[in-house]
Amino acid sequence: MNFSLSLETYRAAQERIRPYVRQTPIAPAPPLTDELHPGLRIKLENLQVTGSFKPRGVFNTLLQLSDEQRARGVITASGGNHGVAVAYAAWRLGLPAIVYLPASATEDRVARVSRWGARVIQHGAAWDDAHEAASQHAVREGIYYIHPFDAELTLAGQGTLGLELLDDAPDVDCVLIAIGGGGLIAGMANAIKQAKPAVRIIGVEPVGAASMQAAVDAGRVVVLPELRTIADTLAPRAVSERTRVLTAAYVDEIVLVNDDAMIDSMRWLWTHYNQLVEPSGAAVIAALRAGAVNIDAHQHPVALICGGNADAASIWTTYQERAEAKARG
Amino acid sequence: MNFSLSLETYRAAQERIRPYVRQTPIAPAPPLTDELHPGLRIKLENLQVTGSFKPRGVFNTLLQLSDEQRARGVITASGGNHGVAVAYAAWRLGLPAIVYLPASATEDRVARVSRWGARVIQHGAAWDDAHEAASQHAVREGIYYIHPFDAELTLAGQGTLGLELLDDAPDVDCVLIAIGGGGLIAGMANAIKQAKPAVRIIGVEPVGAASMQAAVDAGRVVVLPELRTIADTLAPRAVSERTRVLTAAYVDEIVLVNDDAMIDSMRWLWTHYNQLVEPSGAAVIAALRAGAVNIDAHQHPVALICGGNADAASIWTTYQERAEAKARG
Repeated sequence: MNFSLSLETYRAAQERIRPYVRQTPIAPAPPLTDELHPGLRIKLENLQVTGSFKPRGVFNTLLQLSDEQRARGVITASGGNHGVAVAYAAWRLGLPAIVYLPASATEDRVARVSRWGARVIQHGAAWDDAHEAASQHAVREGIYYIHPFDAELTLAGQGTLGLELLDDAPDVDCVLIAIGGGGLIAGMANAIKQAKPAVRIIGVEPVGAASMQAAVDAGRVVVLPELRTIADTLAPRAVSERTRVLTAAYVDEIVLVNDDAMIDSMRWLWTHYNQLVEPSGAAVIAALRAGAVNIDAHQHPVALICGGNADAASIWTTYQERAEAKARG
Repeated sequence: MNFSLSLETYRAAQERIRPYVRQTPIAPAPPLTDELHPGLRIKLENLQVTGSFKPRGVFNTLLQLSDEQRARGVITASGGNHGVAVAYAAWRLGLPAIVYLPASATEDRVARVSRWGARVIQHGAAWDDAHEAASQHAVREGIYYIHPFDAELTLAGQGTLGLELLDDAPDVDCVLIAIGGGGLIAGMANAIKQAKPAVRIIGVEPVGAASMQAAVDAGRVVVLPELRTIADTLAPRAVSERTRVLTAAYVDEIVLVNDDAMIDSMRWLWTHYNQLVEPSGAAVIAALRAGAVNIDAHQHPVALICGGNADAASIWTTYQERAEAKARG
């Protein structure tokens, strides 16, 4: 199978989800200094509802369920952003939802899911363990399982971000996209290359969770023996055959970044654009700053900031303490 | 004096500073829930270079200095955002700069100024003390002093944000703007009311530093006996005659918010738009969420997020620790 979807499928998804998602801004000017490509623009998908691109695939899925499926609700497993997107979209459309999270999920991430009324179940060490348990739960109780990356409807939804980027920046000639399970880059690359084949597409993966590079190199899905990165939203043990095949076909290049480079680029995005993002959201900037990829041949590159859900809990503590000190005088 | 500037002055400033500042995004869709006005848009001036509106006034000033003034450099006093803007703009244009900060300025804010090569001098308990010392320094050494709010060139620069907002949202009928020294609201209101008199302009001030409300009520500048707010960028002890007169003439209403409401609205902006902002940047949202003002009569209100420079130092500590833990395995 080649798993490719038609441009029409992506366009239909874009129309379907339009009332529920935001057309996110593209940052309008160069950074403060000229250390990076002077034409670089950043697409701020961290401003999407729930702080990542995930609601695109989720809304595209939920809006195509039957009445019976909607009544039973949905279930998923997610280390974070997909889970929040499912919880929010289910709340918005009035469906019940169950979200499995790995036991390692931070308090902040659990709160983000629970806020929308979804039932949270924490299980297993990594996403793959939570996924296994959630899939069994779904089969056992006949509930629709929304896969975070290995599903046609998810892929079609994520691909709408490719079409939107072409609308935002018709002159784009190079796009940098982070890779987790590969649903985002597969959908975007599949859509963009059909609409505008000359655009170069560069994937960025953490060196400690390079499941896509391993799969593309091997020509088959590879299960990593260990995961070692702070970019938890980019760290499934394995991609899927669907995302591997599409990435091999439509992505020009995959480059790797380490944790220090991602943290450095979180600070860079804060300094240059006042955007606080999670490590995965900074991965594309890290690839440029660390020199992992050269984009000098391009005139109009765009770096996609795919997610912003950093753990900001310490900030509120800081300010609450200051307010109490002021109140005491 | 009425201190009013012509629309032409604001338009000329807008053209003058255009190569150096960003046209900041206006958030394209409603918040996640419908607790606030469904038509509310937020103008993300926290994405401006250096994270606040301040470079508008600063560039408008620096670009009109004589060669001799440029050679001597500039000096200012600022609790934060204006100081960073002066440091950055001076670096960008190749001028030396000296920035006085109150002794209370956080390490984070000092670092933001120092980064651009400006000389930092910490002096006094509040902005007004630093201002006094900086003004004497300026006179003593014949250096141009850039006032953060009480200067015609500063005002003309800040007013460009009013014109930009009218470009972004031609249907706007109500704008919420935070008040510190009053330079932003005076410039914006002066520009907007000339271009579109029917727009309602609402000022928002911290209850613990309500120097503008006191001045407007008294019909003269009033020096507050004490300052008690975490919104340090909204807390001079007194506004100026210039900003008082313009605010009295062009601002429809002033409402007050407390520190807890600002912190609550910092969290709200993080939850709904993934924007981390400083307390002053959240003040306009706090006014709406706390019910300090009713905007139900308006169709197209805009809340101006004027600054984003929250103290994010604790975030980097959190992530650095996580990266070290991952590296140890």
